[in-house]
Amino acid sequence: MFSNFKINEKEAIFIQVYNYIKNMIENGMLPYESKLPSTREMGIMLKVSRTTVIKGYELLQDKGLVYTAQGKGTFVSKVPLKKSNEWNIDWVRNCTSYAKKAESLDIMKHGEQYKKGMISFKSIAPDEKLFDLEEVKRAFLNRISIEGEKLLNYGYAKGYKPLIDFMMKYMKNKGVNIKNKDILITNGFTEGFDIVLSAIAEKGDKIICENPTHNTAIKLMKLHELDIIGININSDGVDFKQLESKLKNNKIKAAYIIPSYHNPTGMVMPYENREVMYDILRKENIPIIEDGFNEELQHLGSHISPMAAICGEENSVIYIGSLSKILFPGLRIGWVFGDKRLIEILESIKRSKNIHTSFLDQGILYEYMNSGVFERYVKKVRSTYREKYKYCRTLVEKYIPYKEIIGDGGLYLFIKLDNINSKELLQRCYKRGVIFMPGDIFYTDGRGEDTIRLSFGRASMEEMERGIKIIGEEARAIVL
Amino acid sequence: MFSNFKINEKEAIFIQVYNYIKNMIENGMLPYESKLPSTREMGIMLKVSRTTVIKGYELLQDKGLVYTAQGKGTFVSKVPLKKSNEWNIDWVRNCTSYAKKAESLDIMKHGEQYKKGMISFKSIAPDEKLFDLEEVKRAFLNRISIEGEKLLNYGYAKGYKPLIDFMMKYMKNKGVNIKNKDILITNGFTEGFDIVLSAIAEKGDKIICENPTHNTAIKLMKLHELDIIGININSDGVDFKQLESKLKNNKIKAAYIIPSYHNPTGMVMPYENREVMYDILRKENIPIIEDGFNEELQHLGSHISPMAAICGEENSVIYIGSLSKILFPGLRIGWVFGDKRLIEILESIKRSKNIHTSFLDQGILYEYMNSGVFERYVKKVRSTYREKYKYCRTLVEKYIPYKEIIGDGGLYLFIKLDNINSKELLQRCYKRGVIFMPGDIFYTDGRGEDTIRLSFGRASMEEMERGIKIIGEEARAIVL
Repeated sequence: MFSNFKINEKEAIFIQVYNYIKNMIENGMLPYESKLPSTREMGIMLKVSRTTVIKGYELLQDKGLVYTAQGKGTFVSKVPLKKSNEWNIDWVRNCTSYAKKAESLDIMKHGEQYKKGMISFKSIAPDEKLFDLEEVKRAFLNRISIEGEKLLNYGYAKGYKPLIDFMMKYMKNKGVNIKNKDILITNGFTEGFDIVLSAIAEKGDKIICENPTHNTAIKLMKLHELDIIGININSDGVDFKQLESKLKNNKIKAAYIIPSYHNPTGMVMPYENREVMYDILRKENIPIIEDGFNEELQHLGSHISPMAAICGEENSVIYIGSLSKILFPGLRIGWVFGDKRLIEILESIKRSKNIHTSFLDQGILYEYMNSGVFERYVKKVRSTYREKYKYCRTLVEKYIPYKEIIGDGGLYLFIKLDNINSKELLQRCYKRGVIFMPGDIFYTDGRGEDTIRLSFGRASMEEMERGIKIIGEEARAIVL
Repeated sequence: MFSNFKINEKEAIFIQVYNYIKNMIENGMLPYESKLPSTREMGIMLKVSRTTVIKGYELLQDKGLVYTAQGKGTFVSKVPLKKSNEWNIDWVRNCTSYAKKAESLDIMKHGEQYKKGMISFKSIAPDEKLFDLEEVKRAFLNRISIEGEKLLNYGYAKGYKPLIDFMMKYMKNKGVNIKNKDILITNGFTEGFDIVLSAIAEKGDKIICENPTHNTAIKLMKLHELDIIGININSDGVDFKQLESKLKNNKIKAAYIIPSYHNPTGMVMPYENREVMYDILRKENIPIIEDGFNEELQHLGSHISPMAAICGEENSVIYIGSLSKILFPGLRIGWVFGDKRLIEILESIKRSKNIHTSFLDQGILYEYMNSGVFERYVKKVRSTYREKYKYCRTLVEKYIPYKEIIGDGGLYLFIKLDNINSKELLQRCYKRGVIFMPGDIFYTDGRGEDTIRLSFGRASMEEMERGIKIIGEEARAIVL
């Protein structure tokens, strides 16, 4: 207390002392009858002369803010706290419909939440135990020594040039034609998708997506007040018949799809189907937003060209990439790859939203990727998740009464239960310390109440067995 | 090339070889008449048997994608590039009005831009030479050693707890009453303001601000389609008469103000005026968005309570803080301080936009601030800028034909020229390697064509003298 007093050259110092203390009294920081430090003590604390403090105290007394008790000292008078919460804004009533929606769609605020010690099949965050901290330190120190202080000052909205160039090569290595294409670095997939939607879709526009699909994508499409048209996916993949009929009967603005390790089903769309899908959308002139968030996890070893490669020189695919499901999600770095001119537009939107993504983080990620560590790391991660995937699948087959198990790998399995409500199942399992994601939140039409997404990324083999066994037991208990 | 082929266990390998090469041909990566590697070479590169490659090449030949010339090898046939830019989306025509506006309001894309070697009075970025890299390295290594890999995994939308707690204390030390208040960490002031606007102001709502004011704030208010009502500021500060009359005649949703080192004028609103302003807005029940982006730069030494302190226990002030004008703007970290319930709402919006701000950066900043280095650093920065401010002011008085010089310190001076168009002046100075910010972009009503903002943060004393001399010469040349 009294530590933050600073003298202002423009005003009489005793006035400043007066205002400083007056403010504290009126804000309730010096409550009724609390004793002020002696003028000597106060002088020392405020680094002003004692006489100045005396003049300040006198003024406080004249204004009735303090009183002195002979021989006892100076005390705070009973001052009505000028701003004692009389003016209270009801922020909930005053907030926008957008804000209300953002909160009601925030799954982190609804449903069962993970508690320490639980077996979690809910999060699809990567297992940080796989991260190599030493390499991260090396990347940080190398980049800092190369760029110096500059890396800590303002950068460019488009992103850190070396990282952009690296990512362009990276896309090229996926078989993507990069002619007239460019990249914007964003704070992860989520910001990339938000920016893309704000650039290409007006309120009320119709957008196509797989059903079920990534919950965050659904949330964003709803926040942008888009008319979401879900296309069913079954074990054979996207229902092309339904897709074509939907296209026939609606004017669609764009299509959002997740061809590789689709969230939540974990399906990988075969190359042929990607071509079919591309040609169907092409015929109707519907641009594609491709979510590549899981493409790095192709741990079945298959390399299947992304839509961004199938489109060749055409500029109709907007590819949003992220490494957050394998590498450093805490750094929040993703990229939007697409038509050069479109990226220019997105760059201005990005600048308006937060100027740019952390250059330090971009520098670290670039250094890490470029050093070749990434290649080795991804191999390790893939084999780890491959093992977990296989084991998880056998456990589900063994313990859980399912109708269908979908998923080619990735980080999770999608399970259609045998006439069991997944929310009810979750409540039971939660009591026994097991948590997973009920499947209904991934549906665009409220279905999926008998489905669950089981993420095996973070659970140990032993936890997997214990957890899935519990899910199975509770599932059977419901049926009985 | 051919480095990214990966085998898929589900499909005949020669089919995969076929699709892989077919895809390259159709995407123009293997142009007409280019020679394919020999089946032996290709087998080695793709890590498959030669016979598999032969079967793949045969299939390519059957489909007419390649042809063999006896003894010469296999060549790519004349294949119409299936996607050779036939389908071309006009993204400019297809983008939203929001996107168009974001680009047209993007000052980085309009007007004279800084070129290397110029004397710049334009940027208000801090001088990175003042950063202490060794302390940043120490902060990074300490935080990493304390938090480990966790710091690199997903965090919380609200922010990194230790940083939030630190910032709450930090606000308390400004004399702010933190009861029922909370903090959201954002990607700098810009994101904080964007999130706050999206939470409290609907399209078409009226918002009050100083005129002139921070250009990025104007841009965001326009992007949110708010009706901006500017209140004139003169050398005595905000025109309270105009403020009150505007309040009488309009239903105002919120007021955005910059009490400390106002941008662009550099004025500091005296304590008394802050109380007057608060009470005026209080009477009309208008919440205040306080921009504290420059508060740390109080290098005249005065401590003047922010609005967030004046409001006491009331919940009507939303304080947006940032250190970007003194410390590591490249990290993009700011904070929104306000009513607890409001922060909860903002948290959900933040999560929907980019999940959270980099936890690594938050960890580094926390460690740096908490280590006490910051206090010392700020003292250094303040005295540096104080000297520059005084010198800059004398230079302006000496060389530039001005009507008025406004600015109590901070990082810049605001100059009303003597009937000189600042854009014309800039064009002349630009030719001579000097750049500054014309003042009109800060006005809400297109005025200020005779004003300039002169930032002295980054120019050396010697550059300042040279640059301001040039501005003066060109100004006089216009008058003549």
